[in-house]
Amino acid sequence: KINGDRLWDSLMEMARIGPGVAGGNNRQTLTDEDSEGRHLFQRWCEDAGMTMGVDEIGNMFARREGTDPDALPVYVGSHLDTQPTGGKYDGVLGVLGGLEIVRTLNDLGIQTKHPIVVTNWTNEEGTRFAPAMLASGVFAGKHDLDWANDRVDAQGKRFGDELERIGWKGPEKVGDRKMHAFFELHIEQGPILEAEGKDIGVVTHGQGLRWIECTVTGKESHTGSTPMSMRRNAGRGLALITELVHEIAMKNQPNAVGAIGHIDVYPNSRNIIPGKVVFTVDMRTHLLDKLNGMVDELMARAPALCADIGVEFSAEIVGQFDPPAFDEGCVTAVRDAAERLGYSHMDIVSGAGHDACWINDIYPTAMVMCPCVDGLSHNEAEEISKEWATAGADVLMHAVVETAGV
Amino acid sequence: KINGDRLWDSLMEMARIGPGVAGGNNRQTLTDEDSEGRHLFQRWCEDAGMTMGVDEIGNMFARREGTDPDALPVYVGSHLDTQPTGGKYDGVLGVLGGLEIVRTLNDLGIQTKHPIVVTNWTNEEGTRFAPAMLASGVFAGKHDLDWANDRVDAQGKRFGDELERIGWKGPEKVGDRKMHAFFELHIEQGPILEAEGKDIGVVTHGQGLRWIECTVTGKESHTGSTPMSMRRNAGRGLALITELVHEIAMKNQPNAVGAIGHIDVYPNSRNIIPGKVVFTVDMRTHLLDKLNGMVDELMARAPALCADIGVEFSAEIVGQFDPPAFDEGCVTAVRDAAERLGYSHMDIVSGAGHDACWINDIYPTAMVMCPCVDGLSHNEAEEISKEWATAGADVLMHAVVETAGV
Ligand SMILES: NC(=O)NCCC(=O)O
Ligand SMILES: NC(=O)NCCC(=O)O
Repeated sequence: KINGDRLWDSLMEMARIGPGVAGGNNRQTLTDEDSEGRHLFQRWCEDAGMTMGVDEIGNMFARREGTDPDALPVYVGSHLDTQPTGGKYDGVLGVLGGLEIVRTLNDLGIQTKHPIVVTNWTNEEGTRFAPAMLASGVFAGKHDLDWANDRVDAQGKRFGDELERIGWKGPEKVGDRKMHAFFELHIEQGPILEAEGKDIGVVTHGQGLRWIECTVTGKESHTGSTPMSMRRNAGRGLALITELVHEIAMKNQPNAVGAIGHIDVYPNSRNIIPGKVVFTVDMRTHLLDKLNGMVDELMARAPALCADIGVEFSAEIVGQFDPPAFDEGCVTAVRDAAERLGYSHMDIVSGAGHDACWINDIYPTAMVMCPCVDGLSHNEAEEISKEWATAGADVLMHAVVETAGV
Repeated sequence: KINGDRLWDSLMEMARIGPGVAGGNNRQTLTDEDSEGRHLFQRWCEDAGMTMGVDEIGNMFARREGTDPDALPVYVGSHLDTQPTGGKYDGVLGVLGGLEIVRTLNDLGIQTKHPIVVTNWTNEEGTRFAPAMLASGVFAGKHDLDWANDRVDAQGKRFGDELERIGWKGPEKVGDRKMHAFFELHIEQGPILEAEGKDIGVVTHGQGLRWIECTVTGKESHTGSTPMSMRRNAGRGLALITELVHEIAMKNQPNAVGAIGHIDVYPNSRNIIPGKVVFTVDMRTHLLDKLNGMVDELMARAPALCADIGVEFSAEIVGQFDPPAFDEGCVTAVRDAAERLGYSHMDIVSGAGHDACWINDIYPTAMVMCPCVDGLSHNEAEEISKEWATAGADVLMHAVVETAGV
């Protein structure tokens, strides 16, 4: 069993870097705070006897040697970056849970056959630079490295420039590493495990995602002296599409979701009718056909809705992944570990995207989930109990050791 | 007759300060560019033999002496600040038109009985610091000076601090000046004069305005893993109220308008359901009862609309003025001047708010309007012809000289 107190202390220490305004964290990718968190993680890994490798997109790989020099490593990890108003556990638990496995194996003097590599993937959240899971996507061959480096944030800063600025562009070619398997521990970020009273979610599938960046173009003009009949109010386009997205998600129940989280209004002045609104629609469900159907319906209906009120609609997909089905062998290793350790568990579909979704496309992968209070995540008030964190890391360790061999 | 070429050249020279990105201007109040524009105006006034006074809120008053030492001055002017994506004429024409009157009177060696004071009112636009017409409102006793100084912009900067920073806090007590009358020349900012083929609008009334800053509060949570049934999406509150505002304006036709120009979404991340949206509703019409009825309907229906989707609505009025009826004597002076000069003219209601609306509450006031192309304003593409500007300034001069006596 892992040392739950030590794991918890590390979580709390990491949370002091990039504190939020309401008890959570703001440690967005490629900020100074991200860099500081990486340094702390590196120090902890080296203290635990691991050696750190960093690739050209900033992914960090801390390696504990195995007994078989020819065996491919078992990878374990998640991400240290957070939302602007994020919690202390989303991603961080999976990275520090991986570290805790190694610390525990060190304590117990256990050597595995396959090496174990604890990983921190760059820019999982996708808030500052879309899309989410950017660096694991490049690792898995889904995106070009050059394309990734050219992503820009709202201030127009390039991903590649910011990575160099914070000093975490490494020498390794992205995706050169081969894996025996990959395991990711993550908080559920939804309400199901808590409601069902289970300690562990055995993640069999994930939802697919589409991020559709929409632009509604109207005409800037005076809110007072422009007659209603002459207005081309881009804000009304946003309003109609907000409700359209909701309607599409509702009619694809169960399991489908849709919302708009990011909205930029131009020029955003109290007495100017918005001339342009740019916003990102987030749509998800676990069936590929249904997901594509949802996007098709949006694309088919939004232009006409906008045309009716005299504004124009255009859209571009800026993030996407298809619903993943995790590796049966790895999933079984997770389920068996939970069973063996006596933790209550259930099979579950991940509502969020994870680096494991991309890695699953190239190597055998599975995920372990633990509950979070009220299903709340992407909120500074995100909370888990030490017991849940401990159970998750225990199951992770047993699945990893089982797969890595002793 | 005024010198139309000289007026136009001054307009173009002022427009070089704080250029926009699309041919217009971004010379927002209390920015460095605002200060630069003020210095240029001051230099021009002094070159024309006037003496400048500045009050504690930065209002500028350039005085040309009259022949009667006991006569109160006739004031004329408007504002030099612009929208973030504003045009070259909104406000500026009224200030530089006033200057052009004095230059012409100098050329002709004409002395008026009453002094003439050309005025630049601080923060007419209200974009950076709500409400609009802030400094003329303080002058007219509608707002407290301390309250005005405490207004903050989106970056949290105080109005009073920014005024001191740019060096335009003057020594004069605000509102101490007495006026014989006030005249403001302004572009229409609407389509009526151009459509009717008139050179001059004789402004008899103005629309009243209410700015209602609304906050919709939901709960930040993950766009992927939060089931639809558990969402409290503040963005949907914005959507429903956008359409409600439109509906209320439409059912109060003719002449009523309503829109939302300013929207801030928190935390504005692609994969976080908005936990809070703050936005400002702009509602206007020229009948006080109707205007109050529109606001009452919004306030009555918005909370229930929001409650239905699990979010909370709150609102605060951050800007307001009642529909003004301008002074009959001054309005007649404008109409007579247009008639005498042979310009086509019509009576008109101002769709926008103007400093004249506040000054009208304390001294006899009227406005002269000239057409603008396609009724477009609060847009960098705002355009007028030199002929329209000349006609407007001609009428302004004759109304002012008539009122000031020779
Ligand atoms: N786990 C997580 O929140 N990932 C961010 C990508 C997503 O929006 O699902
Ligand atoms: N004239 C003008 O655009 N004034 C700004 C105040 C308003 O929104 O009407």
